[in-house]
Amino acid sequence: MNAPVKTVRQLESYIAGDWVRGAGKAVPLLDAATGAEVALIDASGLDMKRALNHGREAGGPALRKLSFHERALMLKALGQALMEAKEEFYALSTATGATRTDSWIDIEGGVGTLLSYASKGRRELPNTRTLVDGDVEALSRDNTFSGQHILTPLEGVAIHINAFNFPCWGMLEKLAPTLLAGMPAIVKPASQTAYLTELMVRRIIATGILPRGALQLISGSVGDLLDHVDCQDVVTFTGSAATGRKLRAHKAIVENSVRFTMEADSLNAAILGPNAVAGTEEFDLFVKEVAREMTVKAGQKCTAIRRVIAPRAAVEPLIKALGDRLAKTALGNPGEEATRMGPLASLAQRDEVRARIAELQGDAEIVAGDPSQAKLTSGDAEAGAFLSPVLLYCDKPGSAKAVHDVEAFGPVSTIIPYETAEEAVELARRGKGSLVASVFTNDAAFAREAVQALGPWHGRVMLGNRVSAKSSTGHGSPLPVLVHGGPGRAGGGEELGGMRSVKHYMQRTAVQGAPWLLSEVTGRWMQGAKTRQDGIHPFRKSLAELEIGDQLVTASRTVTLEDIEHFAHFTGDTFYAHMDEEAAKANPFFDGRVAHGYLIVSFAAGLFVDPAPGPVLANYGVDALRFLTPVNPGDSLQVTLTCKQINPRETEDYGEVRWDCTVTNQEAQLVAQYDVLTMVAKSWPA
Amino acid sequence: MNAPVKTVRQLESYIAGDWVRGAGKAVPLLDAATGAEVALIDASGLDMKRALNHGREAGGPALRKLSFHERALMLKALGQALMEAKEEFYALSTATGATRTDSWIDIEGGVGTLLSYASKGRRELPNTRTLVDGDVEALSRDNTFSGQHILTPLEGVAIHINAFNFPCWGMLEKLAPTLLAGMPAIVKPASQTAYLTELMVRRIIATGILPRGALQLISGSVGDLLDHVDCQDVVTFTGSAATGRKLRAHKAIVENSVRFTMEADSLNAAILGPNAVAGTEEFDLFVKEVAREMTVKAGQKCTAIRRVIAPRAAVEPLIKALGDRLAKTALGNPGEEATRMGPLASLAQRDEVRARIAELQGDAEIVAGDPSQAKLTSGDAEAGAFLSPVLLYCDKPGSAKAVHDVEAFGPVSTIIPYETAEEAVELARRGKGSLVASVFTNDAAFAREAVQALGPWHGRVMLGNRVSAKSSTGHGSPLPVLVHGGPGRAGGGEELGGMRSVKHYMQRTAVQGAPWLLSEVTGRWMQGAKTRQDGIHPFRKSLAELEIGDQLVTASRTVTLEDIEHFAHFTGDTFYAHMDEEAAKANPFFDGRVAHGYLIVSFAAGLFVDPAPGPVLANYGVDALRFLTPVNPGDSLQVTLTCKQINPRETEDYGEVRWDCTVTNQEAQLVAQYDVLTMVAKSWPA
Repeated sequence: MNAPVKTVRQLESYIAGDWVRGAGKAVPLLDAATGAEVALIDASGLDMKRALNHGREAGGPALRKLSFHERALMLKALGQALMEAKEEFYALSTATGATRTDSWIDIEGGVGTLLSYASKGRRELPNTRTLVDGDVEALSRDNTFSGQHILTPLEGVAIHINAFNFPCWGMLEKLAPTLLAGMPAIVKPASQTAYLTELMVRRIIATGILPRGALQLISGSVGDLLDHVDCQDVVTFTGSAATGRKLRAHKAIVENSVRFTMEADSLNAAILGPNAVAGTEEFDLFVKEVAREMTVKAGQKCTAIRRVIAPRAAVEPLIKALGDRLAKTALGNPGEEATRMGPLASLAQRDEVRARIAELQGDAEIVAGDPSQAKLTSGDAEAGAFLSPVLLYCDKPGSAKAVHDVEAFGPVSTIIPYETAEEAVELARRGKGSLVASVFTNDAAFAREAVQALGPWHGRVMLGNRVSAKSSTGHGSPLPVLVHGGPGRAGGGEELGGMRSVKHYMQRTAVQGAPWLLSEVTGRWMQGAKTRQDGIHPFRKSLAELEIGDQLVTASRTVTLEDIEHFAHFTGDTFYAHMDEEAAKANPFFDGRVAHGYLIVSFAAGLFVDPAPGPVLANYGVDALRFLTPVNPGDSLQVTLTCKQINPRETEDYGEVRWDCTVTNQEAQLVAQYDVLTMVAKSWPA
Repeated sequence: MNAPVKTVRQLESYIAGDWVRGAGKAVPLLDAATGAEVALIDASGLDMKRALNHGREAGGPALRKLSFHERALMLKALGQALMEAKEEFYALSTATGATRTDSWIDIEGGVGTLLSYASKGRRELPNTRTLVDGDVEALSRDNTFSGQHILTPLEGVAIHINAFNFPCWGMLEKLAPTLLAGMPAIVKPASQTAYLTELMVRRIIATGILPRGALQLISGSVGDLLDHVDCQDVVTFTGSAATGRKLRAHKAIVENSVRFTMEADSLNAAILGPNAVAGTEEFDLFVKEVAREMTVKAGQKCTAIRRVIAPRAAVEPLIKALGDRLAKTALGNPGEEATRMGPLASLAQRDEVRARIAELQGDAEIVAGDPSQAKLTSGDAEAGAFLSPVLLYCDKPGSAKAVHDVEAFGPVSTIIPYETAEEAVELARRGKGSLVASVFTNDAAFAREAVQALGPWHGRVMLGNRVSAKSSTGHGSPLPVLVHGGPGRAGGGEELGGMRSVKHYMQRTAVQGAPWLLSEVTGRWMQGAKTRQDGIHPFRKSLAELEIGDQLVTASRTVTLEDIEHFAHFTGDTFYAHMDEEAAKANPFFDGRVAHGYLIVSFAAGLFVDPAPGPVLANYGVDALRFLTPVNPGDSLQVTLTCKQINPRETEDYGEVRWDCTVTNQEAQLVAQYDVLTMVAKSWPA
């Protein structure tokens, strides 16, 4: 059975709100397994400058009007809508050569990334439009001049040039942080599988969830698009290092210091630890992982294991175990349920991989698989781009070149033996910078040394062992919350990584000035900024009434020795510094008996809390509490509580309010400083 | 009186531990004011690959053996040594054309940057070699697979190519974060003023404070140095945009994805707010600031104000006030005490500035100063590169090109009128990305709008007003704690900014694996990692005995209604949720009366504290406290306290220990979670 035949239609680009076709001769895109035409593609003659301007003038302003939480909710809605439509994507995905499992990574992995950013965005970003970065930097002793870093969205367009292997995930993993940051995007998928990206963009646009201009699509060549980029645009590229280098040195990108992120294929290594010999759990896990990485997506993953670095003594059992496993991999039509590995994306891609294998054979010998013929469980070996998994062995990796330099972007890996632990990591580093390395070991000392040595050369290091065997997401899976990218050959970029990647689409700016002006600019109160004491207890104000700077200065309360002793016995905290004058004096920090830190914050709450029901619903926590001056019996405490930040929730009737809390003694010395975190109703009475 | 005549000697480069001279013809460097030869320079034929290898093989490993605190203390010692030798630098600095004030910025500003990193490094970085970045990411529900980002120093060399205007600060501001990160550096100062950099490097090397290979110097051209860089090296460039672009597109930099930071001159703007008309304090501050920025360092600062954007109504008084002020600027020999502005760095530089002024005159007219002749209060107008401050006025800035595009790197600014607030910021943005913009206003609404609009286009925005008049560090001063750099024309780089810039010399890596392996790798305990309960209360262990994972599980304690009422009356915190069953039930978060958060943490301390004198000296704070499940009367509390991080201080007998603290109820629900921060003695008995 072949994949269902699609009506051959010309893909369209989505530019400035219109679905448009190129003016040139459309090129056919063929089904990976059957060779049948799936679609035609061409974008020649399209007005790329118009696309950029539309993103800048319509998409950017519309997105920037939304808060981070509004954008996150938009991503959530989008993710849910795409998940509902997923079967349509799965059906078309088969034409790319992807099995159901391969498609799951692409489609649901991509949507999962949207949803991860949607949820993390609301948890970790404030419900504002400007992001405050780091702490206030006091630049004067008298609090009249301070600094605060902020991040604002870039005002241009993010141009995402993506690879053919993940037509959905490749788009969505970049789109999530871009849109969350408040930047519009132009997506340019690789032609070979652009029909799936185009379908998904059609469905996204049809939902009406994204503002006009937030997402545009180029199905075909980008033409002169890059000639028009300026310093407010971002260009990302995923694909071959050769193309990436050309783009990095592109005139307009260089001249305008355009942010350019590149994520190129790399010669990722998996290292079997020195003690993980045949018979150990780690050996078995390693075999499974290597075989899986070689065959998932037919090895067409930037993160796939290309170099299998193993103790020389383990090589023989490894070749045997891997060879057996690979031989059992059912290679055939991706639409068949029995199929474990589908074809490469195209016949051209297969030619390319075969040529690279031939290069590798200069350094290494094939020990499993045959690149010239594929044993199929289904499908047409003539029409489809099928290739058996090919395992090579390089006996002299020290003098080898191709093994550390040539990437066969398919089901191909090379086993490389090592003698010492140092040599193992040294061989991994010969990849000159990779996206990921994995280390299979149950030996903490080796794990520590390996990570230390691999760190500077890798964007991600995965430790595999028996403990994480079942829960591990695997060597090859970039995760939304972890950095994806790597130095050197891997492109030097950083994608994903939770909120880190959102900042990639924003400009960090140090703002300096008088605290009251800075507070006005950042929406966050700081020491030295304006305060309001209007006689109304700030806990009596709902979010509708509360303003940053609203302040309460409490009465003062003397802490007696009886209080300290009472608190000690009541709580059970009879630490000597509270109970024993002589012992306390011997402590380098105290001059005698001191009050408990927890007594200070408890008394402070007694001073600032307003007891009757009101808009302040709960104290849900405390941040950055520091005890700065010891409190001795007889000292008096006074609290100054100031509204610092107001964060209404989009989907609730309340929001978080952060209060700056300082406790001072009778000499105005700072005794304790912290942030009190409360939930406050949007209106009151509710 | 002329600057003291120096003995003319050939500058040397410091490579692989040797002071060496180039093999070519040395070029004379002339005193800016007198034209006398100060030194000769040449680095041709030096073995640049050897320098790189020396840094990689000697400097890097030696620096990486030190902890962040050891490196910070090294910077402190270096800063102190340079401060003691400062008069020698001041004496030689005069030859660059710098007045005492100019030299202060360069010399003491540079040393101050070292000292700032020394102190901030110890305050904000742990005393380790690997930096943990961000929170643990739980990747499995059962805590068997987690992720943690770490930062490790790059293993190559940082090549710093610096500008002529700050021979000391320009080196030190890059050296501080580089060395703190654990990377060695090769410094290449601009030839014109390299003699001062060379002198300072000599003094640095002579102190013996830096490990071998940590700092090398190239006095002259870099030759083929950049051909040999790889993905572990970093190249930074400060200077003209034209040279910077060439370097950015350099073959080895592009091919190896070498980190490249560029900081180029930019057309920085100062904006006078719409209401800051003549007669206001902000107007006067603005005049002072513009005049100062034009004349300090004779305007040879990347951050100097090039475009003076003012309400059209304020232009006339502004020209008058600025003209008067500039006319009074004593221009003369930099060594003279009466001199307020010295010459440009060289006659060639003056020719260059005059040519740029001529270009500006296409759009603007000169309204103060004469570029063709300088009125001197001292010095030789023939031999020295003197240039009067030149103020231009551009009446039609909307159609002007040169004004927004041509930089005269000297005492030159152009006044640009605006009609509306929107136009003011729009004109500033026409600089296509700048290092800094300043906004002089006492109007919070304008400040807010201006920062929002300027943010994406600037690395720094300074707000000037009456409040910060005395304490402001000024438009032109990059500060160690704030980002220095800017998008677009400014180079797209980011330097300084406190610990942010340290990370520029490190690789971020996501490490995934079983928590116990991750903890071994990061030195930081996390949920799911190994614990040790050896029957010894962890508070009885000194830093010498304590290990991460040392754990105490306490007895449990029931919270009674009497406890809650007692605590309420004792502390004064009689919030209704603790006191009134009905009212508490009406609260969306509670099912009835609940215990105070502060009662929970107080009881928790009572459970985990060990009362007798011991190595734990004090609880100095609490981080990230969250109350997760309400505690009702009758609930029991139990505490699990686990040693999370150990941070011995280099210069004290104790260090910080961070404890993971979880409080659970009788149903094992998490009631509260936080980090307890303590000071613990290195040994006990002490």
